Amino acid sequence: LKRSGYERAFVELLRRSAGRGSRLELGLGDDAALLRPGPGKDVALTCDLLIESVHFDLKFGSPWQLGAKALAASLSDLAAMGAQPKAYLVSLSIPRRPSLKTAFFKALYAGMRAWGEAFGASLAGGDSTASPGPLVIDIFAIGEVEKGRALRRSGARPGDLLFCTGNLGDSAAGLACLKHGSHGLPRGALAVALKRHLTPVPRCQAGRFLLQRNLANACIDISDGLSSESHHLARESKIAIDIEAEAVPLSAAARKLARKLKRDPLEWALSGGEDYELLFTAPASKLSQLERDFSRLTGLDLHCMGRVRPGRGVRIRQNGRLKPLADKGYEHRIF
Amino acid sequence: LKRSGYERAFVELLRRSAGRGSRLELGLGDDAALLRPGPGKDVALTCDLLIESVHFDLKFGSPWQLGAKALAASLSDLAAMGAQPKAYLVSLSIPRRPSLKTAFFKALYAGMRAWGEAFGASLAGGDSTASPGPLVIDIFAIGEVEKGRALRRSGARPGDLLFCTGNLGDSAAGLACLKHGSHGLPRGALAVALKRHLTPVPRCQAGRFLLQRNLANACIDISDGLSSESHHLARESKIAIDIEAEAVPLSAAARKLARKLKRDPLEWALSGGEDYELLFTAPASKLSQLERDFSRLTGLDLHCMGRVRPGRGVRIRQNGRLKPLADKGYEHRIF
Repeated sequence: LKRSGYERAFVELLRRSAGRGSRLELGLGDDAALLRPGPGKDVALTCDLLIESVHFDLKFGSPWQLGAKALAASLSDLAAMGAQPKAYLVSLSIPRRPSLKTAFFKALYAGMRAWGEAFGASLAGGDSTASPGPLVIDIFAIGEVEKGRALRRSGARPGDLLFCTGNLGDSAAGLACLKHGSHGLPRGALAVALKRHLTPVPRCQAGRFLLQRNLANACIDISDGLSSESHHLARESKIAIDIEAEAVPLSAAARKLARKLKRDPLEWALSGGEDYELLFTAPASKLSQLERDFSRLTGLDLHCMGRVRPGRGVRIRQNGRLKPLADKGYEHRIF
Repeated sequence: LKRSGYERAFVELLRRSAGRGSRLELGLGDDAALLRPGPGKDVALTCDLLIESVHFDLKFGSPWQLGAKALAASLSDLAAMGAQPKAYLVSLSIPRRPSLKTAFFKALYAGMRAWGEAFGASLAGGDSTASPGPLVIDIFAIGEVEKGRALRRSGARPGDLLFCTGNLGDSAAGLACLKHGSHGLPRGALAVALKRHLTPVPRCQAGRFLLQRNLANACIDISDGLSSESHHLARESKIAIDIEAEAVPLSAAARKLARKLKRDPLEWALSGGEDYELLFTAPASKLSQLERDFSRLTGLDLHCMGRVRPGRGVRIRQNGRLKPLADKGYEHRIF
């Protein structure tokens, strides 16, 4: 932590937030944190930037939820590599605003700490500065993965089947509900969708499972919607993907809310973003092992919804017709 | 790199910026980067956040210089730990502004790349998003250091001497000149100060030297001015520090510019910030070895300017009188 007048008070707040049982050799309060990697491990590094009014709206959730969600976004990248989370650093650009006082940041860090503890990652440091702009939260996450064995986007092969964990589109359904207002929406379905949107759970255990049992050829997390992520897999693996629209897993909650809001739940799954499920390919020979063990050992549903073939691009079969699937995700266009 | 519509184009830009000879197991374009730590190494992790109009002004320097300086700030934290830089990730919040086009970012990353290559660090990833706020650059840097041997803020002992590398206050002198305008200022001195302010050089080699020869008991980098950093050392090491004002190293350039601008160069050194020199303590028994080898092997001047004693706090002796040194740095107060 550097360059901030309130550095000392903040480090004290963070030291309390870091909690006990840190897995770090040296945590907060020095120029850098120190992590001691296990023998035979690679270190996985990722960061995820959340900007107020672009990625989140303080009206829609609590600071605790925001903290949990911000960390989930980074941990989800580690999950997609099959890495075990170890530590995270947090950078904050903080607007001068009466509502952004100590209580807000305590709750923000408490949310991060809860998610960090659930997935094995300790707060290791960060940087914070007063800013004339919006609240910006940038989380840098570090994990460990068995040397040379990390899951990658580039390993999919023709003949592989395409899987995803959990359901897709719930998070987008939750966002649509927040924008619409809860009035007149079915309460049970609303609760499911809001939980998925406000406190997503990174699929770290599923990623570890796939890596340890050598079940996936390629893997990515679904942060920007199925269409965008399947295009990433296809591009990086230099293969083509065919998706069966009917096999895209939509929850009962998403279907129910979509009917009420006159929206298409498949559209939420394809380009809604922030589901943080894993999208992976596996050889057909692994299907029986996946069907037998995956849900039992990870507690997550598993859905086979397509296959990998030679070629380029992504297609989707809907009402019996195969058509190209546009590469559109949750976008923030700049130039 | 996630969540950005121009992700693909940006990854391509970054892949070119990353250059050849990356030290990474897996670099850009996947969910996370992979670093393979050497045997017997700890991993040092730090980040540094720079916000437009708080930490930098695009009027005062080129995007190339900004890139070099942003990376220098993070590498300086690694230098203070005695760590060898390995990789960095870059998060950008990018305002929609005509001047912030591809050419700007190419130059920004070229500056980072130049500094990265000079100190052994490869671009490993990052995140970028369009923002309604100012340009924010957050750099996470990762280094390696011999297991259990990282230099810390907490190791200073009574009887130690206090040293710093290079000169202090040049960067603040440069900033004062930028604000004043170059008219009427001595050109040679101006060039020195501007270079120190716009393209600071992290003291990575000096940090490695101190660690490898076991010469320092405690170390910190001077990013916020000598007064603030000496207070950090005193607090974390639970000791007191006495500084000799006359021994604080001020360059001829800073003295000359201070006369012209009617400023106190010692004030620049004490609370100016961004010098990125190292401040460290060493036992008196190491003095002769430091005097013999330090400058010869690192190419940097070394200055002894105080000592460590039992107690708390920091004092400065000026005109024969010892008085408490206020803990004031380069501050951005929030709450």
